[in-house]
Amino acid sequence: MSDNPIDEILHARSIAIVGASPVGNWGGGGFLAGLVNYDFKGKIYPVNPKYTEAMGQKVYPSLLDIPDQVDYVISCVSANRVLEVLEQAVKKEAKAAHLFTARLAETGRDEGIAIEKKILELSRKSGMRLIGPNCMGIYSPADGIAFHGDFPKECGPVGLVSQSGMLAREIVKNSPLRGVYFSKVFSYGNAIDLNETDFLDYLADDLETGVILCYIEGTKNGSGLFKSLKYAASRKPVVILKGGRGQSGERATASHTASLAGSTATWETVITQTGAVMADSVEELIDLAATFRFLPPIEGRRVGVAGGAGGSSVLAADACERAGLEVVPLSNEFRKEVKSKGVSVWDWLGNPADLSIREDDSLSVGLVLEMMARDPEFDILIAIMGMPGGPPGMPGLSPEEMMKQQYRLEVTRTKPFLGVVADKSLGINGEGDFEWKGLCRTRTSLINLGVPYYPTISRAATAARKAYEYYRHLNQ
Amino acid sequence: MSDNPIDEILHARSIAIVGASPVGNWGGGGFLAGLVNYDFKGKIYPVNPKYTEAMGQKVYPSLLDIPDQVDYVISCVSANRVLEVLEQAVKKEAKAAHLFTARLAETGRDEGIAIEKKILELSRKSGMRLIGPNCMGIYSPADGIAFHGDFPKECGPVGLVSQSGMLAREIVKNSPLRGVYFSKVFSYGNAIDLNETDFLDYLADDLETGVILCYIEGTKNGSGLFKSLKYAASRKPVVILKGGRGQSGERATASHTASLAGSTATWETVITQTGAVMADSVEELIDLAATFRFLPPIEGRRVGVAGGAGGSSVLAADACERAGLEVVPLSNEFRKEVKSKGVSVWDWLGNPADLSIREDDSLSVGLVLEMMARDPEFDILIAIMGMPGGPPGMPGLSPEEMMKQQYRLEVTRTKPFLGVVADKSLGINGEGDFEWKGLCRTRTSLINLGVPYYPTISRAATAARKAYEYYRHLNQ
Repeated sequence: MSDNPIDEILHARSIAIVGASPVGNWGGGGFLAGLVNYDFKGKIYPVNPKYTEAMGQKVYPSLLDIPDQVDYVISCVSANRVLEVLEQAVKKEAKAAHLFTARLAETGRDEGIAIEKKILELSRKSGMRLIGPNCMGIYSPADGIAFHGDFPKECGPVGLVSQSGMLAREIVKNSPLRGVYFSKVFSYGNAIDLNETDFLDYLADDLETGVILCYIEGTKNGSGLFKSLKYAASRKPVVILKGGRGQSGERATASHTASLAGSTATWETVITQTGAVMADSVEELIDLAATFRFLPPIEGRRVGVAGGAGGSSVLAADACERAGLEVVPLSNEFRKEVKSKGVSVWDWLGNPADLSIREDDSLSVGLVLEMMARDPEFDILIAIMGMPGGPPGMPGLSPEEMMKQQYRLEVTRTKPFLGVVADKSLGINGEGDFEWKGLCRTRTSLINLGVPYYPTISRAATAARKAYEYYRHLNQ
Repeated sequence: MSDNPIDEILHARSIAIVGASPVGNWGGGGFLAGLVNYDFKGKIYPVNPKYTEAMGQKVYPSLLDIPDQVDYVISCVSANRVLEVLEQAVKKEAKAAHLFTARLAETGRDEGIAIEKKILELSRKSGMRLIGPNCMGIYSPADGIAFHGDFPKECGPVGLVSQSGMLAREIVKNSPLRGVYFSKVFSYGNAIDLNETDFLDYLADDLETGVILCYIEGTKNGSGLFKSLKYAASRKPVVILKGGRGQSGERATASHTASLAGSTATWETVITQTGAVMADSVEELIDLAATFRFLPPIEGRRVGVAGGAGGSSVLAADACERAGLEVVPLSNEFRKEVKSKGVSVWDWLGNPADLSIREDDSLSVGLVLEMMARDPEFDILIAIMGMPGGPPGMPGLSPEEMMKQQYRLEVTRTKPFLGVVADKSLGINGEGDFEWKGLCRTRTSLINLGVPYYPTISRAATAARKAYEYYRHLNQ
């Protein structure tokens, strides 16, 4: 076994949950469900004097009543009881503890700060490592550990380091809708012992992780974070969402995870130098996860767009330019090839390619994209998509097969290929809507085929541009 | 009857559709369905030598075969037949014609440009007014006219002037999901006769229109447009989405509606001077429609936010500041009032108010928002929302009643109050998802209650900021 404390936690042979509850998907119930439902292979020891049995597991009155070794302890008790629990954990020779327990330094109160200090002293003295306090700890589906009762059981190549537990939950819950699943997620809160650099270093070397996402509010060790980000970004794409970038966000950060947020300008400069990519929102973080997860390296900024009608083609061009992509005109060679196919609008067609100007079916969106894929003038392809539709006269195809043929994916996917599928924020009575169902089918097919999709052209273009910046920095 | 040609069109006693089709919701079928399905009160004359009957209406071989007066003609014939049709319309003494017919000047070809010129000459000589060519014309649910077979029959106070027909369709179809319905929609395309200024002036004076949306790619009359925008914006909120703002967008504009897009900087300066508000995307246009439609005037930038947990509160603060709102700290008086309610976290609570730090239920999101609504320190309230939940122990309430009590709407809505309800781009198998259904119920309830919602805090904050700019300009 590695002597990395994070490895030791992930491979714990036994986990005790102090303050376990027999119900719920969150907190004392969530941690227990997160071992029971995910088939944790080691021993599970719920601890709570109020119960004797929970989710089919025997419950112990205290840590000291557990007859065997306890490798890892999850503390869900309140702040005034946490020291007692940790002292018992030390007696049980636990290698590490995770403190869901909160209301410590982040309250700004002397009492909480004092307890946090004593916790740290105990950890230093005993060698028992800590995650937290004030956080959700670990979700590692392959290891059978989760901090919520209904996270996905599927693994994927995306790792997440998040200072906020609720945001980690939001990201884990919303990412599968974009085809993104996780290798390991670490929610680390006030970070008095193990901190963002430990988790980043771990994911940088982790063979199961191909993309790293971070949500960071502040750090106590700027130069260490710089080094870890730089190392990680040299090995795989790293995307950071920085919380607490304005004055009020800084105030909120102090009361959330007791961190100093630092100035926006400093952070942006530093992060750009490491080669990591900055996201501006949770939505953009997930957009970038999908982009890096599914696309080959993006090595240029010249984009070809097809699939929209007149107005949306105009707006697509604007959005791509605003995101910093180059919407290059079609070359003479390209037009000649269009003309050779007998297309009457060969001289009118542009990029974005508005196919609504056709008089017949001689030119399809898929064919234009395929030509762009073969043309060295284009680095990136974006398709504005509707419902799945296969070639005429071939009914009975699956939606995936229709999408594959409609967009000629065997060729178009040789270049970075992004789909745009509009979101429609339906009310409860809209579920039966035909068009909405068609778009759902498009999204599902794209995920199954491994094509990333985005709700707007602007978000697709921004993600492509940021991914390009990552690879440009990497190749420098 | 008014002598405004637009009034004459809207109150046409008879409409002929040349090139009508018995099927479809778009084009020759859509225009017919758009009269038949919407209970147009006048006479409907489909014209097409191929049919004798369509959607229950007698079909005439040509305009000249119609026995009665024809006030308004919709031409769906191809470009090479349009002159003949318009000459017949002049013989029938039609007051106006709408040309769905396209492939004219926007093709950039001499042939198309020449036909367009002849059409204009005919109009000038005869006095028959024109909408288009290359556009969808009119949707006016109260007058029983629509250019699509399944647009909403409900009227609302929002008017739309759009150079693009497909975008007009997208806006009309997606707006009801945000509670936004339309008074009149004009799609005007190449605008050789009636143009954006005529439609803007009309909507500026229209009593049924309280908010005006525009999608404009280019104009042939900059000073006229400036004057119309200024007049309209002095009477009611005007929101403009400008297409063709970059180099490539300008190219796309020329081939879409044969317009000169003009430089971005010029447009932004000019539009800001008129008092109209600029939107950056179709999504933002609809956000602003909902904002102006439902909220009272926004007269300050100081925002109070509640409903998120730690991380999302930090990001909410960042997003509000980025949008130009002021996330003011809670005043001592506010904290004192919180303390007086026996709330232990009175000194820890901030703005955004992260209620996940509570130890008990002494403070609810609704109560914090109500206090912010009563506090003169706040101009705008934003709630990050989940599923509807009423007060404990009061089952059997409707979702609307739950939302009303949960957010104390009777008080909180005395200030501009915006809801944030996250979008989740579901795949087809996700419809049964419990949380997703709860969010759908929240959206539906908010629409029924007249509270605007936005998929992200960033979009809510940007809409509030832009609405504030509108009212600030108006009051200067």
